[in-house]
Amino acid sequence: MAEPLKVALAGLGTVGGGVIRLLDANRALIERRAGRPIEIVAVSARDRNKDRGVDITRFQWVDDMTALAEIEGVDAVVELIGGSDGPALTLARKTLGAGKAFITANKAMIAHHGLSLAQVADAQDIPLKFEAAVAGGIPVIKGIREGAAANEITRVYGILNGTCNYILTTMEKDGRDFTEVLGEAQALGYAESDPSFDIDGVDAAHKLSILASLSFGSALTFDGVATTGIRNVIAADISEAQALGFRVRLVGLAEEGEAGLFQRVHPCLVPMSHPLAHVTGSLNAVVAEGNFVGRLFFQGAGAGDGPTASAVVADLIDVARNEYGPAFAMPVESLAHPERADSGERTGRYFLRLTVEDRAGVLAEIATAMRDAGVSIESFIQRGVKEDGGALIVLVTHACPERCVTDALKRMQGSSSLTGSPMLMHILDL
Amino acid sequence: MAEPLKVALAGLGTVGGGVIRLLDANRALIERRAGRPIEIVAVSARDRNKDRGVDITRFQWVDDMTALAEIEGVDAVVELIGGSDGPALTLARKTLGAGKAFITANKAMIAHHGLSLAQVADAQDIPLKFEAAVAGGIPVIKGIREGAAANEITRVYGILNGTCNYILTTMEKDGRDFTEVLGEAQALGYAESDPSFDIDGVDAAHKLSILASLSFGSALTFDGVATTGIRNVIAADISEAQALGFRVRLVGLAEEGEAGLFQRVHPCLVPMSHPLAHVTGSLNAVVAEGNFVGRLFFQGAGAGDGPTASAVVADLIDVARNEYGPAFAMPVESLAHPERADSGERTGRYFLRLTVEDRAGVLAEIATAMRDAGVSIESFIQRGVKEDGGALIVLVTHACPERCVTDALKRMQGSSSLTGSPMLMHILDL
Repeated sequence: MAEPLKVALAGLGTVGGGVIRLLDANRALIERRAGRPIEIVAVSARDRNKDRGVDITRFQWVDDMTALAEIEGVDAVVELIGGSDGPALTLARKTLGAGKAFITANKAMIAHHGLSLAQVADAQDIPLKFEAAVAGGIPVIKGIREGAAANEITRVYGILNGTCNYILTTMEKDGRDFTEVLGEAQALGYAESDPSFDIDGVDAAHKLSILASLSFGSALTFDGVATTGIRNVIAADISEAQALGFRVRLVGLAEEGEAGLFQRVHPCLVPMSHPLAHVTGSLNAVVAEGNFVGRLFFQGAGAGDGPTASAVVADLIDVARNEYGPAFAMPVESLAHPERADSGERTGRYFLRLTVEDRAGVLAEIATAMRDAGVSIESFIQRGVKEDGGALIVLVTHACPERCVTDALKRMQGSSSLTGSPMLMHILDL
Repeated sequence: MAEPLKVALAGLGTVGGGVIRLLDANRALIERRAGRPIEIVAVSARDRNKDRGVDITRFQWVDDMTALAEIEGVDAVVELIGGSDGPALTLARKTLGAGKAFITANKAMIAHHGLSLAQVADAQDIPLKFEAAVAGGIPVIKGIREGAAANEITRVYGILNGTCNYILTTMEKDGRDFTEVLGEAQALGYAESDPSFDIDGVDAAHKLSILASLSFGSALTFDGVATTGIRNVIAADISEAQALGFRVRLVGLAEEGEAGLFQRVHPCLVPMSHPLAHVTGSLNAVVAEGNFVGRLFFQGAGAGDGPTASAVVADLIDVARNEYGPAFAMPVESLAHPERADSGERTGRYFLRLTVEDRAGVLAEIATAMRDAGVSIESFIQRGVKEDGGALIVLVTHACPERCVTDALKRMQGSSSLTGSPMLMHILDL
């Protein structure tokens, strides 16, 4: 039997505990698949004495997390601390600097520092792996990096945040409003006490920027992701969308073409016949569209200790098997640097919801703004709202450049007819 | 720049042409991803002069396909001839014997001879790869072999034949009968002129046996797959199933547990809330259920030149990157040899359709047979059939061991009340 792969583990939260449990439960099978045992030899976390439901006394304890990189005989360091900078980044740099494999679930760190870390890893041909950083247990990094590698990928998109999808699909099922469902999700532990990272789309944006880089062979640019979360989605948006044949999902979408690289996280209307419309609860899903393979669809659990541990250990098995290569599928210096596409020139259909005063002339005002901006209307619904005597207007445009819709909104801005902020959502092409 | 990977290609049908077109179209991108160029240097096919829409004069032509293995300087041979034995198998043996990488889309050959080929490949540590053999363009071999490698997989199943799924979903959409839709599919080129390989489930069974081996770490046993095709599915089965909240799909399912290894291809009732219910047309989809990752779902094009070429070239890129390992995820001698599970002991719900004479006593006869066999009935529908004055009876059982349902059918066998063969379908658990 070959030598074991010796692993040091930083971070013993939910996922860290999951990794230990997984390696215990599936030990024999993993040894057969990896060709050698995978053994945790040292661990580190903030609090040594917290009860984690797993026995950690059998591992060497290290107080300073970043010192794990320097333990003699360790082949690979797994980082499950989180945070884009701080100890996680220090540990990453030290580990790669010491010529050891580095595996992480840390999407924020990869989104911000992935390229500079990959340069260090590539230069020495050592593994830098982050399957767990995107879509939890779904092997989508591998699916794109390797499975779809023969394709020019034109579009990659998906449901990348389970908390948002849980909230949106619960709103859909129960007809309830955002704030109420968020509160319930927090009480159940499905959403953080400070939920902004999830519901404002930042977490999805981190993941999207990683997928985009792998899909297009372009340098990762997190600050190129235009991000809008789901705070302003109301129950009526979802029910009106449903009446029109759509479901509302927070979609991260990246596209590369002649116009450049486009990356956006935004609540979208998804046609019922699209597989993303059937992704419910906290599931994640990713679609990659390739010029030969067509549309690939991956779905599974996007978070949780078991699924995330599954992805982390899959990376360890790749390392143990010696089946790995450049972190971003090609050396960093081979990555392209496309222009950022002008979103104003993108053509699509749009869903617009307005809350207005219910009086003569309002409809004309909206219709005029649309006409003057060159936006043609496909569907139009007006409903009286009993509670405040106002009205809800929902309209779907024909396909037009995005700048026209933005222009129409500008023309309506400040109008005394509007009683609240308009809600604009993109309609996902089939 | 590293040396190119030099490839010889056997078989220039639809997929072979697709591989040549793909390598032409995505040449630069593939070179960046693979770290070196991938170049076809020699080809062989039955007819040298057939117009294939691609220029093959730039490649060395070899009359004897099996001689491709011996060309000096060739690193990898791609086999797209088909057939479980004959020249495909000879070429495989010669290629591996010559210490060269072998890539194939040939599910029949892998199902019948995959283990013996893998032994040769493993012994010399040379790549034997067959991503295109299962589910066309979907990287599901990789998804299971590597992406889900940390898991004990308990169940793997899916829609593995696009022709059957096209026929079933067209019957569903149009309310038409099997024979009519098959004829149309043949006219459109979606089904072969001799369709038995597809519609009798053999093709799906080949693929299932490969998935089962990879999922469970067990030796591939194609003759262990119990196979029933879709010939006997009638329009009424589909409409009655739909009324009960199900869709009919040809599902290949393998399960491993204490009872042993179970493998079956069979038309199934799939609950509407299961992702497989939304797989329409000629798409394929695979579900793998792991003890940590939960349910992974992969969907995409299961056939066609583009998707299949995508999978073949993904394998070539892995070979070029030197990222490969044992064909069946572990050396053949590490594979387990589980007992074959007794299907009679499997517990599940069943859908049974009977065509009967519309006269007194028939219902009592059926109900008695069910009772005596210990089968309890959940739903029961009887409809008069105008054309022949007979009646259609559809019933759904409560969960019971399969042997009870088989026993009930035996009790009814030969009854003068039955006007046709009963149709039994399994209901897929959620």
